[in-house]
Amino acid sequence: MYKNDLILRAAKGMPVERTPVWVMRQAGRILKEYRKVRKDAGSFKNLVETPSLAAEVTVQPVDILDVDAAIIFSDILVVPEAMGLPYEMVEKKGPFFNKVITAEKDLSEIRMIGGGELEYVYEAIKVAKASLSGRVPLIGFAGAPWTIFCYMTEGEGSKTFSKSRKLLYRDPVLSKKLLHLITESTIIYLKEQIKAGADMVQLFDSWAGILSQEQYQEFAMPGIRRICDSIQEVPVTIFSKGAYTSLESIAALPCHTIGMDWQMNIDHTRKIVGSNKTLQGNLDPCVLYGTRDNIKKETRKMLDKFKGTRHIANLGHGVYPDTDPDHVRCFIDTVKEYSSR
Amino acid sequence: MYKNDLILRAAKGMPVERTPVWVMRQAGRILKEYRKVRKDAGSFKNLVETPSLAAEVTVQPVDILDVDAAIIFSDILVVPEAMGLPYEMVEKKGPFFNKVITAEKDLSEIRMIGGGELEYVYEAIKVAKASLSGRVPLIGFAGAPWTIFCYMTEGEGSKTFSKSRKLLYRDPVLSKKLLHLITESTIIYLKEQIKAGADMVQLFDSWAGILSQEQYQEFAMPGIRRICDSIQEVPVTIFSKGAYTSLESIAALPCHTIGMDWQMNIDHTRKIVGSNKTLQGNLDPCVLYGTRDNIKKETRKMLDKFKGTRHIANLGHGVYPDTDPDHVRCFIDTVKEYSSR
Repeated sequence: MYKNDLILRAAKGMPVERTPVWVMRQAGRILKEYRKVRKDAGSFKNLVETPSLAAEVTVQPVDILDVDAAIIFSDILVVPEAMGLPYEMVEKKGPFFNKVITAEKDLSEIRMIGGGELEYVYEAIKVAKASLSGRVPLIGFAGAPWTIFCYMTEGEGSKTFSKSRKLLYRDPVLSKKLLHLITESTIIYLKEQIKAGADMVQLFDSWAGILSQEQYQEFAMPGIRRICDSIQEVPVTIFSKGAYTSLESIAALPCHTIGMDWQMNIDHTRKIVGSNKTLQGNLDPCVLYGTRDNIKKETRKMLDKFKGTRHIANLGHGVYPDTDPDHVRCFIDTVKEYSSR
Repeated sequence: MYKNDLILRAAKGMPVERTPVWVMRQAGRILKEYRKVRKDAGSFKNLVETPSLAAEVTVQPVDILDVDAAIIFSDILVVPEAMGLPYEMVEKKGPFFNKVITAEKDLSEIRMIGGGELEYVYEAIKVAKASLSGRVPLIGFAGAPWTIFCYMTEGEGSKTFSKSRKLLYRDPVLSKKLLHLITESTIIYLKEQIKAGADMVQLFDSWAGILSQEQYQEFAMPGIRRICDSIQEVPVTIFSKGAYTSLESIAALPCHTIGMDWQMNIDHTRKIVGSNKTLQGNLDPCVLYGTRDNIKKETRKMLDKFKGTRHIANLGHGVYPDTDPDHVRCFIDTVKEYSSR
C-alpha cells in the first residue's frame, strides 16, 4: 500500500528495518518553500483554510527533508472555531479569541461540531494523499480536550493559564460540560480525518504540564481515554507535554504510541510504559542549533537509549522557527543511517 | 530571639507546635496596601531600590496576612543588573534587557559583583528587620544561576528560552564561564543578605523545567551545589520549579529545605527526598480562586499528605495577582488551625 510504511509498522510494534523519523512542526516555519506559500496565502488562517495550499506545505517536508511521514498542515484551534469561538492568529503574539467561555451561559454560544464545518481540513488531507501517492503515510491530529479547553477559557496563550485553571476550581461542573463537548467534537473531527485518508492520528496535550496530578486525572484524562477508546481505525499517538506525574495512567491508555518531550528520561519512561507501546521522540530541538557533529552525536545517543524497543524518532517539541533546515536534515539522515546499521 | 521562630525550627527539622506558613509573592501584587506604596514609588524598580519602601512592603504581609515569615521585597534580576546588564520592567510584559550575552566578547561587559552594588537590598533588609522587631524571621533570596543565565542570554521572558538553550549547545564553554560568574556573584550577594539580617535564604530556579535531565545536571546543578556548599550560616531552600527528572540529585544537595511546585506528587517527592529534609509547598495557587470551603478542604488535604514529616506550608508557585487577599488569609488560617490540632 505504501512505498514506505515504516512509521505504521513501528506504531503497531511490527518489525522495522530502521527507526522511522519525522519532525513535529516539519510542515512550516523552517522551510523557505513554506514561507513562499504562506506569503502568497496572505494569512496563516487562509493557508490553513485553503486545501490546495495546506496540502502543498504538508507534502513539502517529504520532498525536501525526506521524512517518513507527512502531517497535515493545520492548527489545533480549528476545533474551538468550528464549535463557535473564532480565533485570530496575531503576528508575533499567537492566537487570540474574542469570545471565551467563563460561565454556564456562554455554553449556549458553542455547539458540538457536526463534522462538516471542517471540510477544508478533510479536503486538504485528500489532496495531500493524492500528492503523496503512497510514498509515506499521512498523520492527522487534534488538540487534546484539556489543551483546547485552555484556549477556549483563557482566550490566548499564557504561561500559567490561570483563568483556565481558575474555572476548574470555580465551576468544575461547567468545566466538565465544556470538556465533554470538546471531547465529542474531537472524536468526530478525527474520524472524519481518518475517512479522508489520515493513516494515524496524534493528540497534542500541549498544556498537560500545568495541572496537578490530581487535576490531570480528574479533568484531562477522561477525555483522552474516551478518544483512545473511540478511535480504533488507525494507530493513535498521545503527546502529553510535561505530564510527568501522570505517566503511569498515560501508559495505561489504549493507544499505540506515547510522545515524549525532551525533558523526559528515556529509561525511566520505558520502565513505566513497558515494552508493549511505541515511544516517540525526544531530541531537544535546541540540539539542532549546534554543529552537525554534535547533532549526529546527540541523535545517536538518543537512538542508543531507545535501542531494541519500539521507537519513532522525533524531536521532543516542535522544531523552532529559526532552525537551519540543513540541520533538521542532518538529524533525519543520522536517524536513518545509524538505526539501519 | 524571635517571638515566632517556627519556620527556622521547621527548616532545621526541630520540633514545632504547628506547621509554619508563608506565601511566595506575599509581598506585593495582591495587597491594596502594596499597590499604594508601589504607586507612590512611581516604578517597580524605584520601589525595589528604595530601602524604606521595599522594607515597608516586606513587612505588610506579616501585619495583614499573619504569615510566619517575611521575605525581602526585591527581584532576582538585581543580580544581572549589578553584573552589568541593566533591566527594565515593562508594564504587562515583564523584564527586558537591552544588552544580552551571546558571545565570548560580551563577557567583557559584565563582572562578578563585589557586593556593594546591591547595598540597597541589604539596607532594605536592615530596615525590615528593625520594623519586624523579632516577630518572625526574614527570608532572603536570589535566582539560581541557570535562571539568571536565562534572562542574561534571552533578554526577556519566554516559554522556551530557546536562545538560552541554543547557547548551551553552541558554546558550552562560554555558558559555563557565565554560569560561574553568576554563581560566585550569587554567593557574595546571599552572604551580604545574611550579614544584613536574612535568617534563611531561598534560591529560585524558575526555569529548571525547560532543561533535559542531562543538561540540568551539566549546567544547572553545579552552581546550585556550590551555593549550598558555600552558605552554611543559615538554612537554605532550593526551589527548582519543574525539575521533576532531577529530583534525586536535588534531594542529595546539602540544603535544609526543598520547594515543591503544585504539580509535584507529595508522596513520591517524600519518598525520593527521604525524611532528613524539609519540604516546602505546594498548594495550587488556583485553589485560592475557589470558595472558602474548598480552600479549607484542599489545604487540609495537602497538610494530611505532609503529616508527620518536616514541612513548611506554602503555595506551589507565587500567588497570582488577581487573588483575593481574604482567600490567602483563609489558606494561612487553615494551615495554622488544622496543623495545631
